[in-house]
Amino acid sequence: MIAADSVLLTDLYQLTMLHSYWKRGMTAPAVFELFARKLPPGRGFLVAAGLEQLLDYLEGLRFGDEELAWVRGCGRFDPGFADWLAGLRFTGDVDAMPEGTACFPDEPLVRVTAPLPEAQLVETRLVNLVHFQTLIASKAARSVLAAQGRELVDFGLRRAHGAEAGLLAARACWLAGFHATATVLAEARFGIPAVGTMAHSYVLAHDDEGEAFRHFARDLPGSVVLLIDTWDTEAGAEIVVRIAPGLAAEGIRVRGVRLDSGDLGAHARAVRAILDAGGLCDTTIFASGDLDEWRVRDLVAAGAPIDAFGIGTRLETAADRPYLDCAYKLEWYAGRARRKRSEGKATWPGAKQVWRRLGPDGRLAGDVVTLVGDRQDGEPLLAPAMRAGRRVPGLPTLAEARAHTARELARLPDGLRRLDEPAAYPVEIAPALRALAAELDAAQLSSCRTAKSASRGDSSRA
Amino acid sequence: MIAADSVLLTDLYQLTMLHSYWKRGMTAPAVFELFARKLPPGRGFLVAAGLEQLLDYLEGLRFGDEELAWVRGCGRFDPGFADWLAGLRFTGDVDAMPEGTACFPDEPLVRVTAPLPEAQLVETRLVNLVHFQTLIASKAARSVLAAQGRELVDFGLRRAHGAEAGLLAARACWLAGFHATATVLAEARFGIPAVGTMAHSYVLAHDDEGEAFRHFARDLPGSVVLLIDTWDTEAGAEIVVRIAPGLAAEGIRVRGVRLDSGDLGAHARAVRAILDAGGLCDTTIFASGDLDEWRVRDLVAAGAPIDAFGIGTRLETAADRPYLDCAYKLEWYAGRARRKRSEGKATWPGAKQVWRRLGPDGRLAGDVVTLVGDRQDGEPLLAPAMRAGRRVPGLPTLAEARAHTARELARLPDGLRRLDEPAAYPVEIAPALRALAAELDAAQLSSCRTAKSASRGDSSRA
Repeated sequence: MIAADSVLLTDLYQLTMLHSYWKRGMTAPAVFELFARKLPPGRGFLVAAGLEQLLDYLEGLRFGDEELAWVRGCGRFDPGFADWLAGLRFTGDVDAMPEGTACFPDEPLVRVTAPLPEAQLVETRLVNLVHFQTLIASKAARSVLAAQGRELVDFGLRRAHGAEAGLLAARACWLAGFHATATVLAEARFGIPAVGTMAHSYVLAHDDEGEAFRHFARDLPGSVVLLIDTWDTEAGAEIVVRIAPGLAAEGIRVRGVRLDSGDLGAHARAVRAILDAGGLCDTTIFASGDLDEWRVRDLVAAGAPIDAFGIGTRLETAADRPYLDCAYKLEWYAGRARRKRSEGKATWPGAKQVWRRLGPDGRLAGDVVTLVGDRQDGEPLLAPAMRAGRRVPGLPTLAEARAHTARELARLPDGLRRLDEPAAYPVEIAPALRALAAELDAAQLSSCRTAKSASRGDSSRA
Repeated sequence: MIAADSVLLTDLYQLTMLHSYWKRGMTAPAVFELFARKLPPGRGFLVAAGLEQLLDYLEGLRFGDEELAWVRGCGRFDPGFADWLAGLRFTGDVDAMPEGTACFPDEPLVRVTAPLPEAQLVETRLVNLVHFQTLIASKAARSVLAAQGRELVDFGLRRAHGAEAGLLAARACWLAGFHATATVLAEARFGIPAVGTMAHSYVLAHDDEGEAFRHFARDLPGSVVLLIDTWDTEAGAEIVVRIAPGLAAEGIRVRGVRLDSGDLGAHARAVRAILDAGGLCDTTIFASGDLDEWRVRDLVAAGAPIDAFGIGTRLETAADRPYLDCAYKLEWYAGRARRKRSEGKATWPGAKQVWRRLGPDGRLAGDVVTLVGDRQDGEPLLAPAMRAGRRVPGLPTLAEARAHTARELARLPDGLRRLDEPAAYPVEIAPALRALAAELDAAQLSSCRTAKSASRGDSSRA
């Protein structure tokens, strides 16, 4: 069975265009860029993410035997096409914002420079990989800001959209500053610390709650977090207090309790009082259940005695804004800048760079998008990530990218950090870029007029 | 590298609970059920989907060498645990609603009967697989109803949440009645017909639009659909009219044009007029760009001359409702029914079946949820899908499931087919089931009282 992340995980039109480029020898260098057209409503910034998986994909890109057999047998293409695909590799360059960089509309996150067929073929999976992690990292960063230092764990694998979404959401949350994940494979694959408590089923499989708690504590003495809401949250807390001394005598400490239903703030206060009165002052309270950045903010603002939050479905599906309006567009080919002018979807032409200025307070003060080579004040944001199909040496590790994200969040102006009605961030289009766009529009308008009059001429002859 | 769909793609608590069940020999049969707690706001029904992938997962479930190495090395578990996991297979039974069945809250979609550790371990991935396809099939079915027979193609791979989401969304859309997909791998893996047009980049990579159209047509003469909105939609249509006679002389027919921006209804009318005036009366119009079931409905209602719709991001992220409130819960273990009573999340205990009655018009008239063995009027919806860890013979093929879905949609009462404010569908909880829940609640209340007074006793002693 062909794997879900096969090179055939693409849109058919990529192959049909490739077929045409191959037949016509249209293999001159092309520049494509991925950018967001606008922010989702109510969002102040994005956090770039997913570059590592993109580079993995580009380095590993090839048509294997099963895929070539499909191409040969599907009845659409010339016989030689599959032979050419067999030798196809990604040989181009990638420049990109490092993962964790705060970014804004019109700014290229990723720039691909490669022979046209290669740069085109990778479009679908490139967007699929970078869009999703950027989406989740951007939302997770909002929870990090809202939690004001309280611990966050991503919990949403089961309702994430499939296997890869669950795994990569854990990575994006970690990048954004989460403290741990519930997803085992995220630890095994990326070294993200996995944590876990227990499910209601564990309690239900026992004859009573206290017995379930004792069994769980004895069987995993290193990390005892007990889920206390299966029947009655406060009664569950009383049971924890009752069994804690016996466990302590066995050398087992109840590290925490988890609340998963009802009014989490009210339950947390009641449970805190019960635990404190029972001498369990350093047993922490972990809350989960339908959480998102707004609920975390409100619980923190209300002073709820919650030490850590498990955030699941609403985060890992980016439930309020489950997609970004982003695109990967041809900006340059065979020596000429190119510009799409579709209504509401026009692009800025040419290979571009983003320059960022900081204010005297060290916070982000404004960006300029311009053509590569048109130097501006500040620091350029896109850096080399791949040259001639291989990663450049010294790219940030995941831990380094996470530290970069934390610095980026700290540098956001207060107006951008708000969960609602964030301030607008100034992104300027440089004069050189505007001039190029105007020049291309003028040339296109003239060619479009020619086409229209030619078409009228044809019709009158018909 | 461990694959994204490894058995380690699970929540850590599954492994910690498993570790405890293994140590205690808690391997008696358990029954878990997956069900929706409620419908997303504004939705009238769900379409069950994802069973085939679930059965693949259960049949293939095992800990491989890399996974066992992680378990041994992670520092959490007793030494013998990994050895036990090495021999673990799923040996249980699955009963489920066939894919494509219309379903409603409180109704089990999937029932798993297996030794407790097996039934528990599979929770995360089971939900992950069945939730997502059910989510997408349920939304795609709304587009099918809205399109009133016009062709639909799923287009959303690039903004689907990762690789598996893109692939399985294509499957769920096909199941729901879509006519084709843009995703190549969905054809290679599932036999779903893939279709494609061209991207703006193809046009932009040429010196003029007419040249791009001619090249594309000549290089893929079997299926020529030209994208005409790169600069000016109507000018693009004029160019198609101008080049069509030359292509016809070469034996190439322009099968269709695609619109992807602006007011799709207005452009479709203008383009239809241009094509008709140019003698291209059987060249179809394909529309895409920010579509969903409401926009399709409105375009159809307005009589827009659009023959086919490409629906992408909003469908494959289920953008308005990107998750279902569903859960997989322990209902029975070691000979006794079990019931979680968490606030707002109580479950109906015991192994259950759903019975469906049809009205005199052949439409769905009402369901009853009851205990297995409590026979009701109508037809039972859950059927055997797996016995002792192997698929039962004769399960529906994907094509059969698609035909079943079409029958199900045709049997929905008109009130449920509305896109907005759908009617409520009657799902009755049978007296036998209510009685069992009341009995368990009474027993639990009494045990909870005992625990509370015992806890008070402890505290006063402290």
